[in-house]
Amino acid sequence: MKIAVFRRAHFNAAHRLHNPAWSDEKNQAVFGLCNNPNYHGHNYELEVKVVGEVDPETGYVIDMGALKQLIYEEVEQRFDHKNLNLDVPEFKDLIPSAEHICFVIWQLLRQRLPDNLDLAVRLYETPRNYVEYPA
Amino acid sequence: MKIAVFRRAHFNAAHRLHNPAWSDEKNQAVFGLCNNPNYHGHNYELEVKVVGEVDPETGYVIDMGALKQLIYEEVEQRFDHKNLNLDVPEFKDLIPSAEHICFVIWQLLRQRLPDNLDLAVRLYETPRNYVEYPA
Amino acid sequence: MKIAVFRRAHFNAAHRLHNPAWSDEKNQAVFGLCNNPNYHGHNYELEVKVVGEVDPETGYVIDMGALKQLIYEEVEQRFDHKNLNLDVPEFKDLIPSAEHICFVIWQLLRQRLPDNLDLAVRLYETPRNYVEYPA
Amino acid sequence: MKIAVFRRAHFNAAHRLHNPAWSDEKNQAVFGLCNNPNYHGHNYELEVKVVGEVDPETGYVIDMGALKQLIYEEVEQRFDHKNLNLDVPEFKDLIPSAEHICFVIWQLLRQRLPDNLDLAVRLYETPRNYVEYPA
Amino acid sequence: MKIAVFRRAHFNAAHRLHNPAWSDEKNQAVFGLCNNPNYHGHNYELEVKVVGEVDPETGYVIDMGALKQLIYEEVEQRFDHKNLNLDVPEFKDLIPSAEHICFVIWQLLRQRLPDNLDLAVRLYETPRNYVEYPA
Amino acid sequence: MKIAVFRRAHFNAAHRLHNPAWSDEKNQAVFGLCNNPNYHGHNYELEVKVVGEVDPETGYVIDMGALKQLIYEEVEQRFDHKNLNLDVPEFKDLIPSAEHICFVIWQLLRQRLPDNLDLAVRLYETPRNYVEYPA
Repeated sequence: MKIAVFRRAHFNAAHRLHNPAWSDEKNQAVFGLCNNPNYHGHNYELEVKVVGEVDPETGYVIDMGALKQLIYEEVEQRFDHKNLNLDVPEFKDLIPSAEHICFVIWQLLRQRLPDNLDLAVRLYETPRNYVEYPA
Repeated sequence: MKIAVFRRAHFNAAHRLHNPAWSDEKNQAVFGLCNNPNYHGHNYELEVKVVGEVDPETGYVIDMGALKQLIYEEVEQRFDHKNLNLDVPEFKDLIPSAEHICFVIWQLLRQRLPDNLDLAVRLYETPRNYVEYPA
Repeated sequence: MKIAVFRRAHFNAAHRLHNPAWSDEKNQAVFGLCNNPNYHGHNYELEVKVVGEVDPETGYVIDMGALKQLIYEEVEQRFDHKNLNLDVPEFKDLIPSAEHICFVIWQLLRQRLPDNLDLAVRLYETPRNYVEYPA
Repeated sequence: MKIAVFRRAHFNAAHRLHNPAWSDEKNQAVFGLCNNPNYHGHNYELEVKVVGEVDPETGYVIDMGALKQLIYEEVEQRFDHKNLNLDVPEFKDLIPSAEHICFVIWQLLRQRLPDNLDLAVRLYETPRNYVEYPA
Repeated sequence: MKIAVFRRAHFNAAHRLHNPAWSDEKNQAVFGLCNNPNYHGHNYELEVKVVGEVDPETGYVIDMGALKQLIYEEVEQRFDHKNLNLDVPEFKDLIPSAEHICFVIWQLLRQRLPDNLDLAVRLYETPRNYVEYPA
Repeated sequence: MKIAVFRRAHFNAAHRLHNPAWSDEKNQAVFGLCNNPNYHGHNYELEVKVVGEVDPETGYVIDMGALKQLIYEEVEQRFDHKNLNLDVPEFKDLIPSAEHICFVIWQLLRQRLPDNLDLAVRLYETPRNYVEYPA
């Protein structure tokens, strides 16, 4: 019996959308307010979905306390109260759009989960804008 | 790398569920309070999901400002503060159930999006009743 | 020991803002989209606050089941799935703005509650627009 | 035209996670606070998803009033204001984890729905922990 | 400059409404489903409001980390994943209605806060039923 | 008949808590993660409350469209997608704590509202931390 389990977490971070290969004018035209050189920020809300067989001895797909701890170690410790552009090495050469942040989180969690569990990540940048990987 | 991006919007509208091929008694029996001849209304909440490849130059699947504008033009301008039965031509011969409204919105947005992007629409009629197309 | 207890309820209704003493032009200028002659609608969310002494034998200020039933009788039965302008006598000569609806609900509930209980009503027309009486 | 329709409901219940084949020590080590012998509880929030063809005569996949009634009979009447371990026969020999509760609800609803409708159930144990079947 | 600051927290607990001075019949008549002898439960959501002068050196009324820790020590450690009737001494002779739980929490926090800070507590038993002390 | 009307808005911003009169060590000790020199950020959610007499000709305390525009001009244009420390002159010598931001917003709106209307501002820094002025 395969079931999906979901765990939510959040982190607060500053970021800026900027492509260094472009002129300032093009960055401004494409990214608008999100290109502010002094950064802006968000309360990012994260939904982690793990799919697997239910263990009949525990009734669990995965221990939610262990999943919460894993999200803390891999996501909150790296991203919470940080400037994504300046403080997080993963975004040194990668624009920290919601899409890219979501994919980076998926990669960080994927390498810590057993192969028999499937993983999807949804990231809310605001309550009205959010992304999901894989689609 | 395919990612899903989501954008929320809303509109407030009046509607009535009524099948003109039926007697008043049958309409009342099937649709109950929703058949009120003087209409009732809802705060419709819309979730638009677009799936596509991330552009590495922007980190975007689609410019969320452009998607917001598209939803404004195709959905909000047609439906917001309207009577769906009387003011919206798409429902002249189509019962404005949540299912039908959702499908009409999907059609309106589908014809404005490039073919390489997939589209799904979720429509909340109330926080407890909602629909999604495609399923 | 005085405590406030709160109960939420909701109703879905159509309405139109229109002052019959004014020209159509003035109504349109003042009320804008809300003046649509064919009505629009909302999911109204209601918060009823009752303040009183806690009964030590029950631990209750008021039986929440009784308060729920009172809201059903006085508010939901009158307003749910109705056209406020056409179906509700209280708005025959009163513009059904959120402010007026809130005050009418307060009056309807006030006359059914014992004098030793205080009452306040908050009405959400949308999640971003709401009113409260008394202020 | 296949569409998914969703209906939400809720119930409040007590439960305890405990595997009778294990020692108290192992139960405590695996289930932690959830193993409290005196139980704890939750406001469970339920999302029922039904997928099917839209009936052109009604605009409905399924009558939402009928679905609401079905959820009331099969879920709320069994589980609301109950102790899942003591009052609900389905959990006599099954640990009432969110995963198992979700699967039991799916079974109860599945046997009452016509074969041409697909069913999925999402169960929120808290706003941050939830599960879905099928995955 | 006086400002109110708010901090939210939550705990999950089982409880039962029962007055031992009454017959089982009267308890059942007054408390209904909430009288279940095997208990039921809730995700209690807590809002703590502290009012005081803003310290110009920090911009704080109170350090929110300290307030979070205080709520953890006085509320979460006592109530989370507990049976309020059996595990919490404060309810040995006090019916654990939302009103009484709210007042007990206010007392526990009040004795830990400096006198120059005012305190109010709101407790959500469900998203539709909640209480506040002082009123 | 006095009624309170509420309007919600939001803005996304970066900020940092830092008292320049203190050493780095003291700033770190007092403000912790919020002292990150590279900033972090939030989705700030704003609730503006205006209290006044209802105009019987409109049913309004204040035109909500005008209030929305006022919030846009005085709050969103100044703060949205900005770094509060670097881009907003009001915080040149004022620590942008939630308390101070709330008070600055109150001042900005107060000078634009007629004297016969009362004003209160609530500012959510996260869904769990928020402040209100006046208290």
